[in-house]
Amino acid sequence: MTTHLTTAMTTATPRPHPESLVKLLRVGPAGAERPALLDQDGTLRDLSALTPDIDGPLLADTDALTRIRTAAADGTLPALDGADLRVGPPLGRIGKIVCIGLNYHDHARETGAAVPEEPILFMKAPDTVVGPDDTVLVPRGSLKTDWEVELAVVIGRELRYAADEAEALAAVAGYAVSHDVSERAFQIERGGQWDKGKNCETFNPLGPWLVTADEIPDPQALGLRLWVNGDLKQDGTTAEQIFPVAEVVRYVSQFMTLYPGDVINTGTPAGVALGRPEPKPYLRAGDVVELEIDGLGHQRQSLKDA
Amino acid sequence: MTTHLTTAMTTATPRPHPESLVKLLRVGPAGAERPALLDQDGTLRDLSALTPDIDGPLLADTDALTRIRTAAADGTLPALDGADLRVGPPLGRIGKIVCIGLNYHDHARETGAAVPEEPILFMKAPDTVVGPDDTVLVPRGSLKTDWEVELAVVIGRELRYAADEAEALAAVAGYAVSHDVSERAFQIERGGQWDKGKNCETFNPLGPWLVTADEIPDPQALGLRLWVNGDLKQDGTTAEQIFPVAEVVRYVSQFMTLYPGDVINTGTPAGVALGRPEPKPYLRAGDVVELEIDGLGHQRQSLKDA
Repeated sequence: MTTHLTTAMTTATPRPHPESLVKLLRVGPAGAERPALLDQDGTLRDLSALTPDIDGPLLADTDALTRIRTAAADGTLPALDGADLRVGPPLGRIGKIVCIGLNYHDHARETGAAVPEEPILFMKAPDTVVGPDDTVLVPRGSLKTDWEVELAVVIGRELRYAADEAEALAAVAGYAVSHDVSERAFQIERGGQWDKGKNCETFNPLGPWLVTADEIPDPQALGLRLWVNGDLKQDGTTAEQIFPVAEVVRYVSQFMTLYPGDVINTGTPAGVALGRPEPKPYLRAGDVVELEIDGLGHQRQSLKDA
Repeated sequence: MTTHLTTAMTTATPRPHPESLVKLLRVGPAGAERPALLDQDGTLRDLSALTPDIDGPLLADTDALTRIRTAAADGTLPALDGADLRVGPPLGRIGKIVCIGLNYHDHARETGAAVPEEPILFMKAPDTVVGPDDTVLVPRGSLKTDWEVELAVVIGRELRYAADEAEALAAVAGYAVSHDVSERAFQIERGGQWDKGKNCETFNPLGPWLVTADEIPDPQALGLRLWVNGDLKQDGTTAEQIFPVAEVVRYVSQFMTLYPGDVINTGTPAGVALGRPEPKPYLRAGDVVELEIDGLGHQRQSLKDA
């Protein structure tokens, strides 16, 4: 599943966006990624000397993050040759992934669902996470594998019963692109709870980058786009979120404790296969899905049969 | 939350059962447990020299398990003084917890639910797991915190799309007592998916022991019991499971890959608060819950407010 980092970083997309932020990422073979940083000049730099990984303990360590920022600004980090390096998920040892269902006005409309009165929560196992350009497997027996581009929130501080949205936002370490791949028959037609269609292997490509929260001045003003075989299928904005990021994090913390290294997938905008007329264009082996969020990078997955 | 190991091991229960099996456990402060074994004589023995932890990698390593069995039989393992040692969950670094809903005929009847045509799946985050005698917290705002004694299946081998129940059972490393604590209002009345009422902190006491699968000749012949403040509330048997363990594991592996160190909570028998007449006797701070499964040990939790 190795892809070329240079491809991942420069894939032509319909809307190029400024690439001036400092981005954390993990590169190398699956399960043996090393921590890295893409600096403001687009140079890939090795973070191994400053942290063993990009994970919850790092995100909870503001001193370590400051050392990384300083080293990035000073240009003292060793450059890495990105050619032939696979990009992994930008976060290791994820604790849990909480997902928000039907969190965009336009997506609720297209699926015929009522606007939820409070956030709908479901879960994905961390073992579903793969790199942004890794293969996605269509499960055996699947006829309704669907796409969902989502803004992922990465938690950097333990949070229980947040008193308000400000306390919740202060626990957010950063953001990433997340692909909440979903099997609709497993999710909806097989007996009760959505998790059954959300946890197939490879069903959560994440990355390429973890962009720290201070670099995203307004998480409610991000464009999200997804293409299937080059056709633009989702073209939304987080401004359409029914429950914005701060409220989602506050809300989730009333029901479960959030820990550094936890992830929240904050829902998908309109344009999924489920919301289209019959015959709905579900994914098959051979399809190529690309997705991106303003400032958070680009993913590209080929689909194969499991 | 430290409790006395000797208490945990000898708490008087209405139905004592033979304690002749070798049991794996983890003792010490939360987050710093050490691996141990309770041998056939009831002596606690230190496993630190043979494994750094009791976790997925150990369960996948049949050579290491054989070394542990041999050392246990030889009586060469150093004894540990169990006095004042807290018992932790018997499994570290849990990957995911898959739960089966409405999997007992008697429980489906009491809740008025139809017998499911296929297993209902939902999830708990591994961070909900605590030791068998740790405090359980009633969530803020909770009026409907409920109990559920369950047989937990611990996975010891990667399993994808198991062809049959025999292949599924071969992936089971062992069994443990699991308390699937549930907040019914959060689960059912707050917008859609059960996970919302299943993932509050401390909501999954596990243990005291992980008993290897070879020591449990028939997982469908185990009595499960639960008491609240000394009153017997659940008194069931895994013979009442709608989908037996082998079928549950086979089924789950069609939807997600199971890895060593994953856990499946296989459902609860009749007798939960939800299934009782109004006013339903939900749990409150100050209550004491005890639970046990034949051959798998005994749990005792005091409830406090979060």
